Amino acid sequence: MCLAGTLEMKLPAIAAAGFDGIEVFEPDLIASPTSPADLRRRCADLGLSIDLYQPMRDMEAVPAEEFAANLRRARAKFAVMQQLGCDLVLACSSVAPTAIDDDDLAAEQLHALAECAAEHGIRVAYEALAWGRYVNTWDHSWDLVRRADHPGLGICLDSFHILARGSDTAGIAEIDGNRLFFLQLSDAPTLDLGVLAWSRHHRLYPGQGAFDLVDLTAKALAAGYRGPLSLEVFNDVFRQADPGPTAVDARRSLLALAEDLAVEPLVPEPVRSRLGVPPAASPATGCAFCEVGIDAASSESMTNLLRGMGFRAEARHVKQDVTLWRQGGITLLTSSEDADPRVPGRGQVAALGLYCADADRAAQRALALGAVPPAPEPLIDSLPGVVAPDATRIYFCGPDDSSWSSVFEPVAEHDRDPGANAAGETWDGVGLVALDHVSMTQPFDSFDEARQFYARVVGLQAQDLVEYAAPFGLLRGRAMCSPDGAVRIPLSTSLVRRGGWTPGLRGPQHVAFRSEDIVATARRLRSAGVPLMEVPDNYYADLAARFDLSPDRLAEWRRLGLLYDRDGSGELLHLYTQVIGSRVFFEVVQRIGGYEGYGAANAPIHIAAHHRQRHPD
Amino acid sequence: MCLAGTLEMKLPAIAAAGFDGIEVFEPDLIASPTSPADLRRRCADLGLSIDLYQPMRDMEAVPAEEFAANLRRARAKFAVMQQLGCDLVLACSSVAPTAIDDDDLAAEQLHALAECAAEHGIRVAYEALAWGRYVNTWDHSWDLVRRADHPGLGICLDSFHILARGSDTAGIAEIDGNRLFFLQLSDAPTLDLGVLAWSRHHRLYPGQGAFDLVDLTAKALAAGYRGPLSLEVFNDVFRQADPGPTAVDARRSLLALAEDLAVEPLVPEPVRSRLGVPPAASPATGCAFCEVGIDAASSESMTNLLRGMGFRAEARHVKQDVTLWRQGGITLLTSSEDADPRVPGRGQVAALGLYCADADRAAQRALALGAVPPAPEPLIDSLPGVVAPDATRIYFCGPDDSSWSSVFEPVAEHDRDPGANAAGETWDGVGLVALDHVSMTQPFDSFDEARQFYARVVGLQAQDLVEYAAPFGLLRGRAMCSPDGAVRIPLSTSLVRRGGWTPGLRGPQHVAFRSEDIVATARRLRSAGVPLMEVPDNYYADLAARFDLSPDRLAEWRRLGLLYDRDGSGELLHLYTQVIGSRVFFEVVQRIGGYEGYGAANAPIHIAAHHRQRHPD
Repeated sequence: MCLAGTLEMKLPAIAAAGFDGIEVFEPDLIASPTSPADLRRRCADLGLSIDLYQPMRDMEAVPAEEFAANLRRARAKFAVMQQLGCDLVLACSSVAPTAIDDDDLAAEQLHALAECAAEHGIRVAYEALAWGRYVNTWDHSWDLVRRADHPGLGICLDSFHILARGSDTAGIAEIDGNRLFFLQLSDAPTLDLGVLAWSRHHRLYPGQGAFDLVDLTAKALAAGYRGPLSLEVFNDVFRQADPGPTAVDARRSLLALAEDLAVEPLVPEPVRSRLGVPPAASPATGCAFCEVGIDAASSESMTNLLRGMGFRAEARHVKQDVTLWRQGGITLLTSSEDADPRVPGRGQVAALGLYCADADRAAQRALALGAVPPAPEPLIDSLPGVVAPDATRIYFCGPDDSSWSSVFEPVAEHDRDPGANAAGETWDGVGLVALDHVSMTQPFDSFDEARQFYARVVGLQAQDLVEYAAPFGLLRGRAMCSPDGAVRIPLSTSLVRRGGWTPGLRGPQHVAFRSEDIVATARRLRSAGVPLMEVPDNYYADLAARFDLSPDRLAEWRRLGLLYDRDGSGELLHLYTQVIGSRVFFEVVQRIGGYEGYGAANAPIHIAAHHRQRHPD
Repeated sequence: MCLAGTLEMKLPAIAAAGFDGIEVFEPDLIASPTSPADLRRRCADLGLSIDLYQPMRDMEAVPAEEFAANLRRARAKFAVMQQLGCDLVLACSSVAPTAIDDDDLAAEQLHALAECAAEHGIRVAYEALAWGRYVNTWDHSWDLVRRADHPGLGICLDSFHILARGSDTAGIAEIDGNRLFFLQLSDAPTLDLGVLAWSRHHRLYPGQGAFDLVDLTAKALAAGYRGPLSLEVFNDVFRQADPGPTAVDARRSLLALAEDLAVEPLVPEPVRSRLGVPPAASPATGCAFCEVGIDAASSESMTNLLRGMGFRAEARHVKQDVTLWRQGGITLLTSSEDADPRVPGRGQVAALGLYCADADRAAQRALALGAVPPAPEPLIDSLPGVVAPDATRIYFCGPDDSSWSSVFEPVAEHDRDPGANAAGETWDGVGLVALDHVSMTQPFDSFDEARQFYARVVGLQAQDLVEYAAPFGLLRGRAMCSPDGAVRIPLSTSLVRRGGWTPGLRGPQHVAFRSEDIVATARRLRSAGVPLMEVPDNYYADLAARFDLSPDRLAEWRRLGLLYDRDGSGELLHLYTQVIGSRVFFEVVQRIGGYEGYGAANAPIHIAAHHRQRHPD
């Protein structure tokens, strides 16, 4: 249920991602031309066990004649399971309108179901749905299982049903582990929404939501559970996303969970050592370089823009058409890219080089977590790297390792840019001192996956989710940052996948540089004729209304095109360039005090302005 | 706020849809390069008044120094409003953490705000947000307005905030109408969701949700309200949809509301006659014909399929390449279509001819409701018609009017299909007696608009919304039907706009014919070699488990490829053909007893099977 597509499409995706087994979801089998016996062989060939068949619904606590029909149905399914070679079936607590509030009856019928299953060599795992009619808490299901008292009957715990209701989980560690037949894991964001719709539309892989799955799983392991850690995750996006990447994301979430469990005191020692933990993290600590791809048509504009922004072309790649630009502590690479007209919105942030304490270990960990290395002929073959969910290449670079720059040849002195601006001054930049952040719109399907990638593979910390209205739709954003803010990658996506109409930028990306004196920087950019984004006068009228600012300061910002934001801990002054090519632009920021955000309040301003730039009347 | 895009994009869309005025939403103005004075002129040129400026937030019930800053901000906005020529501002009840639970303070500050506004010739409409910190019900806001006692202060009622909380609205008719300054209307579906998220993501135009807006509006009119009926609607879809169609949808919802208000006893007589009601409905009562477009590459397959299905080509269009096929009470047109490779998924249901008592009045009503007639050179110029939101042409046809068929020339006897099947039998069809339903996937952005179109323009009734999981994503469906079921149009869309990966059919459509004996029909289709969809054996194993069916009956269904469903009132037997071209297929149904559905339980089966047909391993 975690993946979209048909059964025949899911199996190879699951096997490729490195899973050990599957649950068979009945509707998949029913819509499939593969017979149960063929499915068994197919799974065996792929190295996958079939650990559970599901679901049986509305089985128990029903009138006698209905239960007789249920047993008839169950027998037919047990025969299917025998052909599948699967010996565990999931029975969900009844939601039927005909269900009866009678625990004795429920236990009696569960016993009869287990007895019938046992005749086929099958065990029954009983699970309390959070919206079950009378049984909707894990302890109630556990009580019924004990009451039914059949060796072939146990419980299945599904983290969603337990944690969405806020149930007390303390007792789980006390369950008889032999009767805990199955454990299904799913995370979810905190939502003020009914449990049924919350479950149906918003589950997430472990670590992507707000639930404490480490604690819950540790309690199950402490109780003696030794079965599979199974994922039971579906949401509007996963239900229609490519099963290949979704399976990788799923498997990564389990490895991350294993990593967290390995340091959890509740987890028994012998289990801990069998968890298959990936190599320890070596988190990103800084930005070595950022590469921006640019198509041939925009190459000259980009060169002019970077010169105007005070960058100097210092070196060229020995094999590829890549230029290395420097200013302050910033290294920017521009690579020429054969724009493929079939791919909308190329011309983008193509790669990030990130410093970390142990680059090789970071890369080994990334591969263990299912990330794949860049295709052959990488830009920088001396650095290990992986590909992010949005296809950005991420390179790991040891501290003070500048060996990677050996693929770049210094530009001969006389070829160097003579100066940063048109005024003929000697080059000294415009005061950009560091890369502040790299803002990347994510493909709709991989927004949550990207969060996990940057957290677990790159070692960044997820900031709070923000959601804001913008001229062409609601946007959702989450910044991934190193603890000291040296690496900042704000990710964003549209709340609804953008349709054919949307005239805004497709997948806009931008690189933001830091200035310690943005007023001085902006003056130099203006005098160099850098094409900056135009800010409407109405914006400054609103600033004047909202904040008690000196008229001089405000007048200067207006002349220079600076935007302003303020929060409880500091202020932000920033400006944007126009869009170069189809989707990339640049930003300059000055953070004053403890301001940690990205000026989201001003996002609608730059979205509308960039739209006007590209679609003048 | 009802439309996506920039202010400059919204205005022409609003004017074209026939609105009289707008509210200016402050963030739109702030992001706009149009000065307030220019906006005023622009609106005047378009015939639009500016009726409200919004929002003022967190104004009242705050500490004194904060209120002083608020007044400062308000004065700046009042100056903007004077340039706009707008004399009414909306102040929302405070959500600020600094707000104080003190009605006297709130009333005192509202009075001061109104006094300040009055100095600028501006009035203040105070609105209780459903999630206001201390003021969150309409009667509380009304109480504060009376307490503040300033002639320039009144209340604004927003239907969402009132009805989402289930507030008692009886007292609204008793409000002093002169103090009811503004009325904002929005509908919403019933959701088990917190009011803030419900409001932010799920509002709908009046008549598209579950709220009784007729009653609420009638009470406001009874109270003496004579201001604009304003729409305050936003959801994830509208926020990013083309503002042109959204504005038409919005205006249509107001006209429909006016129509309902005109027969509401609470509405005072003089108001009733000024409501601008569209011509009375002449609802669709039956299906005259259905036209399917087909590209050149699929033309031969379509011809063979229709012959095999027992249709006879009886006539050809005098000017266009359109064939008229008949069987039983069914008239099917096939039109050849130059497949445009840039338009994905062409080859579709192109037109429906619907019987109604008064075709001319139906057409006049449709135009009054903002529908547009088909482009020049229509298929059938003697019939009035309009274009549905998904571009399907809808023709209105008087009862027993067959004049439209005069554009078709009978095929000479010797050119007619000699027989319906390969066995050389004399033509007598395969037992298809009527068109049962026409199932159309809607563009993601216009699913709700289509509901309103078919309800108000075509006169069909909306059935309950259904939602179901399918192999390539969750689907949402709603059938639009005539009361006797003679016209049935099930509409569906993906819950999330489909992305690049999705390998299923794009916007599938199908036409379902009714048989009174589907077993006999299926035998004839099989013997004629009609390419029917393959149904997996696993499906029949599941039928056997779920239903107590005779083995003979089941074996026959399996041989013939019939699907089965059952509900409380009857049974459905149905079958599907393979897909012809890129997105069209046919269905045959037999309804037994009172079954009124469309076999949604079997949708995943045909989605997976049609996928396999088009993507064999």
